[in-house]
Amino acid sequence: MKILVIGATGTIGRAVVEELAQRHEVIAAAKSKAELLVDITDERSIRALLDSIGKLDALVATTGNVHFGPLARMTADEFKIGLHDKLLGQVQLALLGQHYLNDRGSITLTSGILSHDPIVNGASASAVNGAIESFVKAAALELQRGIRINVVSPSVLTESLTTYGEFFRGFESVPAVRVARAFSKSIEGGQTGQVYRVL
Amino acid sequence: MKILVIGATGTIGRAVVEELAQRHEVIAAAKSKAELLVDITDERSIRALLDSIGKLDALVATTGNVHFGPLARMTADEFKIGLHDKLLGQVQLALLGQHYLNDRGSITLTSGILSHDPIVNGASASAVNGAIESFVKAAALELQRGIRINVVSPSVLTESLTTYGEFFRGFESVPAVRVARAFSKSIEGGQTGQVYRVL
Repeated sequence: MKILVIGATGTIGRAVVEELAQRHEVIAAAKSKAELLVDITDERSIRALLDSIGKLDALVATTGNVHFGPLARMTADEFKIGLHDKLLGQVQLALLGQHYLNDRGSITLTSGILSHDPIVNGASASAVNGAIESFVKAAALELQRGIRINVVSPSVLTESLTTYGEFFRGFESVPAVRVARAFSKSIEGGQTGQVYRVL
Repeated sequence: MKILVIGATGTIGRAVVEELAQRHEVIAAAKSKAELLVDITDERSIRALLDSIGKLDALVATTGNVHFGPLARMTADEFKIGLHDKLLGQVQLALLGQHYLNDRGSITLTSGILSHDPIVNGASASAVNGAIESFVKAAALELQRGIRINVVSPSVLTESLTTYGEFFRGFESVPAVRVARAFSKSIEGGQTGQVYRVL
């Protein structure tokens, strides 16, 4: 399979590339420091990337920013960061990417545990993750030509505990290598409309 | 209690006003044709409304637009309609409104069944409803002074079947009067962080 991984330089992205490159042709893209560059908040940038690659068997997004901060002081502009970056960025990848996929291809997005297991300072992240999960369930009804869509929803990464551990006290962390297996399941399996929780 | 209902002219809003006005002081606001006017996509409009009213015991939002249409042709701009209107509009009401509520006050938002039970043409609505439900679960952790937040997630309204029935074949509809009781439960009960599904 020919697989495009967007967000390939991140902790999850690197693990996904490593897992899939053993068996497939993997194209790595990211905002910086990657073979191919793309800004998921810019529709033209996504189109240019997809045009440069042509037909694909799988499209993977492991990227997206969100604002973390206290609800009492959260502004609409802070809330919009996640809406326009992680949420709309991944949705645009799906909306545009569906037309570049071969029959029976797949799209796999990334949400996160905060959709249903919230933390303090994480209201925006929860909203974004919940939106991506519900979007995937709905999009699966409409994709044509046997194209599938799923989302991987991991707990906090073991690799990120030094940075984010204090916000996720008591959460079981998961190593990126386990998260990568959920992407393999989505791409190399047959299910659609699924939220793969990696807990 | 002094209760502000935003979206008071809609089918749900009217039923909520009728239910609550039996026991409380209800202030009705909407985009048009209401006692008080407000545009939930405009932060200044929300602030002006809240400033004109002063302290409240409950803030209710029963409003918000979303785009319905086929995934194969959906554009980012169409997807953004729901993000900026129903989602960010209701979130802004909560973010701003929290500071106008009396101790032990409440915020009640509106999502909808499509968050978890999707339909064709409804990918954007699913995303928006999923976001609102996850936002509420997270926001409940942080609200101060005993302020609570819940969301009412109704099935298609019986009153709307003539317009929307063909998109919701096989769904059990619910009359607005039943949906209104879930708002009463949120406002007059003690729970927080809940998604009240009215199915």
